[in-house]
Amino acid sequence: MAAIPQPNNPFLQHMGINLLQWSEGYAEFEMPIQDWHMNRQGALQGGVVSTLVDAACGYAGLYSPAGSPEVHGVTITLNVNFVSSTKKGRLIAKAKKIGGGRNIFFAEAEVYSDEGILIASGQGSFKYRR
Amino acid sequence: MAAIPQPNNPFLQHMGINLLQWSEGYAEFEMPIQDWHMNRQGALQGGVVSTLVDAACGYAGLYSPAGSPEVHGVTITLNVNFVSSTKKGRLIAKAKKIGGGRNIFFAEAEVYSDEGILIASGQGSFKYRR
Amino acid sequence: MAAIPQPNNPFLQHMGINLLQWSEGYAEFEMPIQDWHMNRQGALQGGVVSTLVDAACGYAGLYSPAGSPEVHGVTITLNVNFVSSTKKGRLIAKAKKIGGGRNIFFAEAEVYSDEGILIASGQGSFKYRR
Amino acid sequence: MAAIPQPNNPFLQHMGINLLQWSEGYAEFEMPIQDWHMNRQGALQGGVVSTLVDAACGYAGLYSPAGSPEVHGVTITLNVNFVSSTKKGRLIAKAKKIGGGRNIFFAEAEVYSDEGILIASGQGSFKYRR
Repeated sequence: MAAIPQPNNPFLQHMGINLLQWSEGYAEFEMPIQDWHMNRQGALQGGVVSTLVDAACGYAGLYSPAGSPEVHGVTITLNVNFVSSTKKGRLIAKAKKIGGGRNIFFAEAEVYSDEGILIASGQGSFKYRR
Repeated sequence: MAAIPQPNNPFLQHMGINLLQWSEGYAEFEMPIQDWHMNRQGALQGGVVSTLVDAACGYAGLYSPAGSPEVHGVTITLNVNFVSSTKKGRLIAKAKKIGGGRNIFFAEAEVYSDEGILIASGQGSFKYRR
Repeated sequence: MAAIPQPNNPFLQHMGINLLQWSEGYAEFEMPIQDWHMNRQGALQGGVVSTLVDAACGYAGLYSPAGSPEVHGVTITLNVNFVSSTKKGRLIAKAKKIGGGRNIFFAEAEVYSDEGILIASGQGSFKYRR
Repeated sequence: MAAIPQPNNPFLQHMGINLLQWSEGYAEFEMPIQDWHMNRQGALQGGVVSTLVDAACGYAGLYSPAGSPEVHGVTITLNVNFVSSTKKGRLIAKAKKIGGGRNIFFAEAEVYSDEGILIASGQGSFKYRR
């Protein structure tokens, strides 16, 4: 179980996605793989991995310290490269904000298996929502 | 409810995603929006829309007529542009295969709201799995 | 040769890219393929096709009628799927703006060979520059 | 001037792009910015930066030691996020192969200005050509 406060995010909670680390410009999530995350071929559906990439990239640019107001944003674009696959254990997504300005930011994420195999690499653009 | 046979796809079923039309080079899915599809801002999480794009693009290239063996594939890359947003009703994803060869295919999808507003546009590359 | 006024765009001119059609939400360019557009394998370098996609998508959202001030924009993200290849003749890129708001717009382009074969499909996001 | 042997790549040579480093899974290119690299707004045309990303990502996966036969590949997809801009000096693109199998590989690139500012971040998928 994650030791830090979890965002009140219905879809992430539903997917079983937990926030592991969150700081300025960085976010890390984990997701234990479930049978219902699979497609008809018994592989992770692409949207499951994309959910992790979108969450990690977005949160990486939207950090606010405890006690401060939440910072919100909207995904503009998301690109995911599906490098390899896994069926068991846990996925870990690590993202960092790589740049941007007052209105838009960019972030990159890598998704790993429990064994440290790179499952996917993604990048996204986001706009701040005020 | 969809009138055609549904694929045995655990994640799509879990998300409430139904196959509406499927033919050579074309696939169409619908998804009634649920409260748990939302992020902490009360908007559709990017992964929800990405799931529809991945499903529609993938199935568009993997059609097999009833009675024929299933054709399987793996997503290589997925790109989604989030054009506008909606919070209610149903999403419809329409995808077509646009080209490829013996090993790889390409497809494009558009996701609409019930009112016909373009919510997202995506494109993906896939490899056949034999 | 293109019959409409050409934008004062050094890189497009250098590449031999001509504007064929330009109207609200739509842009079309052509580029005669040159030997120096090739990579070491004798195929079109990916950046050549990306140049056409970027130009077509961008101009599709930046139309201004003759006599009106130019509308400018900056590419946020560009995604290109390389569907097939060609070595001779002319490439034609056709793009349409598919949505957006006051600050950002989205466009899609398809690049064809002279024979009407789909060479590439791309999508981009752009911000207006004021 | 680059001190290592340059690939016989007409488009890269034409653009003034030089290979700086090349080893298993890694490639680095530089490009002095020219006036003709600009668009009508006086900014780098998106295709110029995409050319660097495509070259760096592709070469990162196609290294062959001096004396060995060339390894060739074809871009499947290319995604570029345009993080910031620059008008002068030199661009440096650094790419690494991040995974793949016997037929397909994935790579990521970052493009920097002379001052070390991140100009763009990209990722691509490629297939080997035999």
